[in-house]
Amino acid sequence: MEKWIYTFGEGAAEGSAGMEDLLGTKGANLAEMSAIGLPVPPGFTIATGVCGYYHGHDGSFPPDLEEAVATALAKLEADRGARFGDPANPLLVSVRSGGAASMPGMMDTVLNLGLNDDVVQGLARKTGDQRFACDCYRRFIHMYGEVVLDIDGFLFEEAGDEIKEDHGAVFDRDLSAEACAEMAKRFREIVKAETGEPFPDDPQAQLWGAIGGVIRSWNNQRAVIYRSLHNIPDDIGTAVTVQAMVFGNRGAGSITGVAFTRNPSTGEKAPYGEYLPNAQGEDVVAGLHTPLPLVESAAHGEIGEATALEAHAPEVFDKLIGLCDRLERHYGDVQDIEFTVEEGRLFLLQTRPAKRTVEAGLKFAVDMHREGLISREQAVVRVNPDDLDSLLYPSVDPAANAHPVARGLPASPGAASGVAVFDPDDAIRRSREGEDVILIRKETSPNDIHGMHAAVGIVTARGGLTSHAAVVARGMGRPCICGASSVRIAPELDSFTVGDVTVKDGDEITLDGTGGGIFLGRVPTVEPELSEDLKTLVSWADEIRHLAVRANVETMDDASAARRFGADGIGLVATEHTFFAPARIMTVRELTLARNERERRPSLDRLLPLQRADFTRLFRELRGFPVAVRLLDPPLDEVLPETDAEYEETSEALGLPVEAVRKRVAAVRQIVPVLGHRGCRLAISYPEITEMQVRAMFEAASAVMQEFGETVTLEITVPLVVGKREFDFVRVIVDRVAAEVEQETGCTIAYRVGTLIELPRAALRAGEIAKTADFFSFGTDDLTRTVFGMSRDDADAFLTTYMNNSVVDLDPFVTLDIEGVGELVRIATERGRSENKELLIGICGEHGGDAKTVRFCHSIGLDYVSCAPNRLPVARIAAAQASI
Amino acid sequence: MEKWIYTFGEGAAEGSAGMEDLLGTKGANLAEMSAIGLPVPPGFTIATGVCGYYHGHDGSFPPDLEEAVATALAKLEADRGARFGDPANPLLVSVRSGGAASMPGMMDTVLNLGLNDDVVQGLARKTGDQRFACDCYRRFIHMYGEVVLDIDGFLFEEAGDEIKEDHGAVFDRDLSAEACAEMAKRFREIVKAETGEPFPDDPQAQLWGAIGGVIRSWNNQRAVIYRSLHNIPDDIGTAVTVQAMVFGNRGAGSITGVAFTRNPSTGEKAPYGEYLPNAQGEDVVAGLHTPLPLVESAAHGEIGEATALEAHAPEVFDKLIGLCDRLERHYGDVQDIEFTVEEGRLFLLQTRPAKRTVEAGLKFAVDMHREGLISREQAVVRVNPDDLDSLLYPSVDPAANAHPVARGLPASPGAASGVAVFDPDDAIRRSREGEDVILIRKETSPNDIHGMHAAVGIVTARGGLTSHAAVVARGMGRPCICGASSVRIAPELDSFTVGDVTVKDGDEITLDGTGGGIFLGRVPTVEPELSEDLKTLVSWADEIRHLAVRANVETMDDASAARRFGADGIGLVATEHTFFAPARIMTVRELTLARNERERRPSLDRLLPLQRADFTRLFRELRGFPVAVRLLDPPLDEVLPETDAEYEETSEALGLPVEAVRKRVAAVRQIVPVLGHRGCRLAISYPEITEMQVRAMFEAASAVMQEFGETVTLEITVPLVVGKREFDFVRVIVDRVAAEVEQETGCTIAYRVGTLIELPRAALRAGEIAKTADFFSFGTDDLTRTVFGMSRDDADAFLTTYMNNSVVDLDPFVTLDIEGVGELVRIATERGRSENKELLIGICGEHGGDAKTVRFCHSIGLDYVSCAPNRLPVARIAAAQASI
Repeated sequence: MEKWIYTFGEGAAEGSAGMEDLLGTKGANLAEMSAIGLPVPPGFTIATGVCGYYHGHDGSFPPDLEEAVATALAKLEADRGARFGDPANPLLVSVRSGGAASMPGMMDTVLNLGLNDDVVQGLARKTGDQRFACDCYRRFIHMYGEVVLDIDGFLFEEAGDEIKEDHGAVFDRDLSAEACAEMAKRFREIVKAETGEPFPDDPQAQLWGAIGGVIRSWNNQRAVIYRSLHNIPDDIGTAVTVQAMVFGNRGAGSITGVAFTRNPSTGEKAPYGEYLPNAQGEDVVAGLHTPLPLVESAAHGEIGEATALEAHAPEVFDKLIGLCDRLERHYGDVQDIEFTVEEGRLFLLQTRPAKRTVEAGLKFAVDMHREGLISREQAVVRVNPDDLDSLLYPSVDPAANAHPVARGLPASPGAASGVAVFDPDDAIRRSREGEDVILIRKETSPNDIHGMHAAVGIVTARGGLTSHAAVVARGMGRPCICGASSVRIAPELDSFTVGDVTVKDGDEITLDGTGGGIFLGRVPTVEPELSEDLKTLVSWADEIRHLAVRANVETMDDASAARRFGADGIGLVATEHTFFAPARIMTVRELTLARNERERRPSLDRLLPLQRADFTRLFRELRGFPVAVRLLDPPLDEVLPETDAEYEETSEALGLPVEAVRKRVAAVRQIVPVLGHRGCRLAISYPEITEMQVRAMFEAASAVMQEFGETVTLEITVPLVVGKREFDFVRVIVDRVAAEVEQETGCTIAYRVGTLIELPRAALRAGEIAKTADFFSFGTDDLTRTVFGMSRDDADAFLTTYMNNSVVDLDPFVTLDIEGVGELVRIATERGRSENKELLIGICGEHGGDAKTVRFCHSIGLDYVSCAPNRLPVARIAAAQASI
Repeated sequence: MEKWIYTFGEGAAEGSAGMEDLLGTKGANLAEMSAIGLPVPPGFTIATGVCGYYHGHDGSFPPDLEEAVATALAKLEADRGARFGDPANPLLVSVRSGGAASMPGMMDTVLNLGLNDDVVQGLARKTGDQRFACDCYRRFIHMYGEVVLDIDGFLFEEAGDEIKEDHGAVFDRDLSAEACAEMAKRFREIVKAETGEPFPDDPQAQLWGAIGGVIRSWNNQRAVIYRSLHNIPDDIGTAVTVQAMVFGNRGAGSITGVAFTRNPSTGEKAPYGEYLPNAQGEDVVAGLHTPLPLVESAAHGEIGEATALEAHAPEVFDKLIGLCDRLERHYGDVQDIEFTVEEGRLFLLQTRPAKRTVEAGLKFAVDMHREGLISREQAVVRVNPDDLDSLLYPSVDPAANAHPVARGLPASPGAASGVAVFDPDDAIRRSREGEDVILIRKETSPNDIHGMHAAVGIVTARGGLTSHAAVVARGMGRPCICGASSVRIAPELDSFTVGDVTVKDGDEITLDGTGGGIFLGRVPTVEPELSEDLKTLVSWADEIRHLAVRANVETMDDASAARRFGADGIGLVATEHTFFAPARIMTVRELTLARNERERRPSLDRLLPLQRADFTRLFRELRGFPVAVRLLDPPLDEVLPETDAEYEETSEALGLPVEAVRKRVAAVRQIVPVLGHRGCRLAISYPEITEMQVRAMFEAASAVMQEFGETVTLEITVPLVVGKREFDFVRVIVDRVAAEVEQETGCTIAYRVGTLIELPRAALRAGEIAKTADFFSFGTDDLTRTVFGMSRDDADAFLTTYMNNSVVDLDPFVTLDIEGVGELVRIATERGRSENKELLIGICGEHGGDAKTVRFCHSIGLDYVSCAPNRLPVARIAAAQASI
């Protein structure tokens, strides 16, 4: 005979955690709590098999089920010292469904089952609370009518509202005992009218009605659709859990409360929570009474001496504390507990992992490992890396209590104060004069990069989290607010207005890139510090993780941040800075407008010492690291003159009439620069640029070697290849120049030559490319752009609509699109490794600092991820979690 | 004992075609010619195995080879009645390498081997031509010295030039017998000086030297690299062919000539060719003498009665004609034959498929099938589809003998005359006034499309074969010349200049898009007509091919061309025309600048009848066809106002101040429109646009059904999807509106809903998408752009450099990149079919009209290709060829 019923109660259970398929999540959880000796109100679970039987047998139950339920119910009555349906000493029960998860359309819970006109009087007598009894009764009829008898809930609500109005009550809590009794009566009439039958007064009929209702609701249309959408199998079925009701409002010896095993706000190891004597759980939530603290130290002192539970009910308190300890040991995490004391007897109704602040979460994890409660791995897994942002950047001091004058999207975290400027050149000028500046633009373009660099923060009126400003600012680690649409910028007046407020050029403002607020004046900010807990956790993560974590750098600041935040190396050095620094732009413009190699050489001769000096400074800071330097990547359109003044200037520098300059500009100007003449296409058109860059980096590495006896391991990254022949073309140049410099300096620099895989074709041809490449670095920003055929600068116009319509779930520019872009990454990794076992593979897109992406990179066996320096702790923890 | 030697000679051979691995291509070919009884100068081939033996045995020959060569040589001497090395009656031979193909670095041919100071005198006596003998001798020493003895060829050339100068000769042909003799002497001295050994006078030593040289050259570095680049196996080795020399200049009974088995210019079935009595083959080529015709009818009449070979040597002529017939039967193709008559004896030196004009090629194929010489399949294979262009478009009448004033790239075939205009609006205005206009622009952008449409031809000063102008013009079937860089356009003056010539607005010009020439004035053009031969061949192709061939259409002209050129259906109807027609642009601009659906509705209400009317006209023409209509695809930026006048106009239409219009324009203007808000992204943002379009097409199809009792099978193509959810979103709209229209009209229209696969992600997620899609249509233009990360508008700047450096072989925008884009097409096809067996799959990019691409599409099992109407015959033949 199949076992249909699994009982549970204090200290014993026939089921346990892990039996979710048989008992449902709730049933298994209650069984587990009982099994480890927690005082759970007793009950029993009807296994999921009954659901299968029922639907397979035309809606009939297994023949032996009735007897089994009767036996279990008798046990429950004995346990609780009360009888189901007995007005003198009534036992009430709840009936709950028990699938893998709660499903829309599935019957959830019927409470207080077992009441009828007689029993409700008994309950009132027993609890001494007429209103409570009547309230339970009318709620029960409503719930039963709606979920079991399938009566439109609106009928009950309408009738309830009328009665409330008659009694001058606004909320349910204002209802008197009489009003509740009247409501129960009206609800019974509704049931009669709607079903043609009187409300079932027989508690047994109620029970079997509810059990059948739960089981039938498994096949509700909404539940079926929900399962199909969420890939939940149809054939498991739902369990049904029947549990004794307990009440915290049965007089002075009764209590209801909530306890946390530790302080969820500070992380302190001390019980924390609230209770109310002689009350129901919902009273704590509803705020009718001010709840009281559990421990003395936190006592409000409002109701005299006996305010904390510690003092009010010391035995209960001690027992609760003991349970807290046991729960933490058993579940290995801080718990949030609902408890009820019924006439001196403590029951736990629910326990679940406690919600917590980021700081508390770190402290919990570190402390609990030190207490031996959890392993180092468990501690590391406990932290959500995505939550760490607020700890890694400066923030507006909450103590300042400042109110933002406008809000935008929190595009790049951190806080900064400075004077407002509206022009990138002004930003540079004022920052050179020692001022902190905040650059305010309608939107930004690559022409603004030098100004963004000079600024301590950036605000744009347009664009979203993936706009140019946002992406560049995150890359630079500058706080940034995008899409502050209430800000009206009048650039010709050098000012912006929000409502009545006008902020002029030079006015001080503060921005909070973490929260999205813009403040007038200088609001104090708090510097981030890696707390001891975070440092500890990250160091544990480092011991666990297999994935190396590198940083993307462009400036000296980035380089020192990379070291400070614990990088294992540098995954990407963008060399654009050397080219696009304002003092050098004219030289690069000459280079761009030159018609042949002869005309390009002089500009390159001037750039070589500048680039070498940049590399030397960087390599000094980064010595000992592997450092991947990307060859010149951006389209040179970015330096072309735009304004008349720039044309004049260029005309002078080139010694050509303005008209001639305009002609040359027109000849090199591109329609879609981002898909145009850039990346290694420049190297193939103008090999002399690559020669200059490679010479600069090898000379710099040699100089650092001679200065310190140690230098960087150079990794030269060729951007935007689509196949092996392109890569080989550039590799030949690199190898040749490297040999020349070695000859000249007598200094041997270890180096690798590899390629960015940032176009779909490179991913598909990865096997071939790997034959001559030493490493792959996935440029997932460009790869996402091309795989989706989507420009991140323009995606804001439709991505929001997409997310609202569930056409996409996540912004693919933030979290790697595993199904599409990720598949190409996987294909390229497999093909590359199959041709070259030694191939080093990493990812250097902005995605490298995203925890979900880091897990994916680990799962497909990459060697490293590379991210913005501030994101290093996030990536280090995510990498460790992926290893566990 | 292994057989090393394979002899061949008139009427017999030990080898045959198909023995290339053993005898090399040349050896097998000569054996084949001999075997079928052609009078080939006899010889023998040393099998490739000797090469393997030699390199495996430290450079020694198989022990039995010497005797085998001696035996074969003796047979040769007997055959020719001459003796190798005998000054009295010398036999000369050629020695050739014989790999799978000629390889750079491999020894090619040594002619006239067997000469020395004595033998050369004998040759002079025997031929009666001292100069010829000495010329052979000096050439032999030079060739032998360079290729066998590995002496720098420059030394011979330098010495030769000195002697030429001494004798006042400019070309080799000016050299006297004495000069040749002197050269031979000097060359022998060079050999002595460079090798330290005298030139080998012993013909046997010469022969073995040449055999060893050929075999050693197999492992030359250049040959090894060449094999590795071209995937030719290293281990097969080269054969060596030794063949008797024959001479056409041994007196009156000797002749040299070239014959075609049919007329290669007209295709006429009549022998055609030229000969010279008592001359050498190179005399025909060098043009020292005027060659004479083979047949009377074509006689020049220059040397009296006996001019044609027919009359000059009737027996030889009859024999030659007999051979022509035999050759055609054997090879199944028109042959180009080199022949020599040595003292009355006819030899064929070489036979190969004749080069031919396109017209002749068609005629050959059709005639030869009708004559029973080749099968229908062979006839179809015989035509190169890429050559048909000149037959499918109008061309400049060659009889007009016009000279182009400038040239550009032949970007879109065809010829047209009209008045020059420099502005798209002028183009429309003048074309409405009934003039043919030629639009001349520096380059074109989508803003010019309406003007391009109004023009009969387009010229741009910038851009290549894949520029916007070229692509659009090809799509529209307008002749176009791009990159006419000598044309200086002064748009503000409405004129252009080339050198001294100025062409002003309104001046007549003619352009030849097939050849690239621009002509002043109106040059007569010739309309294309599908010749009877082409029609026949295409009809045969239709019976053979499995791939359907559809057309891409945008206009009514396209639609009728599609029917005329034999489309099986329509693979792509671009609906942009309805939106971007000049008369409607303001409505679309209102639509684009609307802020919400309510503001969009009025514009859509105005567009619905226009679009319905467009569809109705089109569907009338196309009834009976499956017609795939693409939903609105281009970014709406294209209609935004640009000029102040347009802003004014828009401001009036919208009833908004210009400043407000500018703000709205700024808000919708995109940075990279092509990767932005376009394709189905528009449908998801503005479902009401899709509703309007779908309603228009179903109403139109219903109207045509009611009018004719027959209509089109609608295929609605959703552009630019990246995944299933996007597609499903649009499909729901289509199905709903289709049902609504069916309800309203009572007319059931058969339809499919499918998607363009034009982004890498769509290709990767094809399995999922196929679950709800009825068809896939590969948009290979967009797919190429994204797979390569390359904008075709900008690619000209570097693609030329790429091709010059062999970084790419073919322009991927013209011929599908099989390794990259093709792999995604293959992946998507496999994944799509595995989820949906009924899935209809085609390609509708510009590549659909490229023969190589058509073959690829057939090979991976697509259902159809779709191309510009004019390319239909090309695609139909290519599809048949792929099936064969």
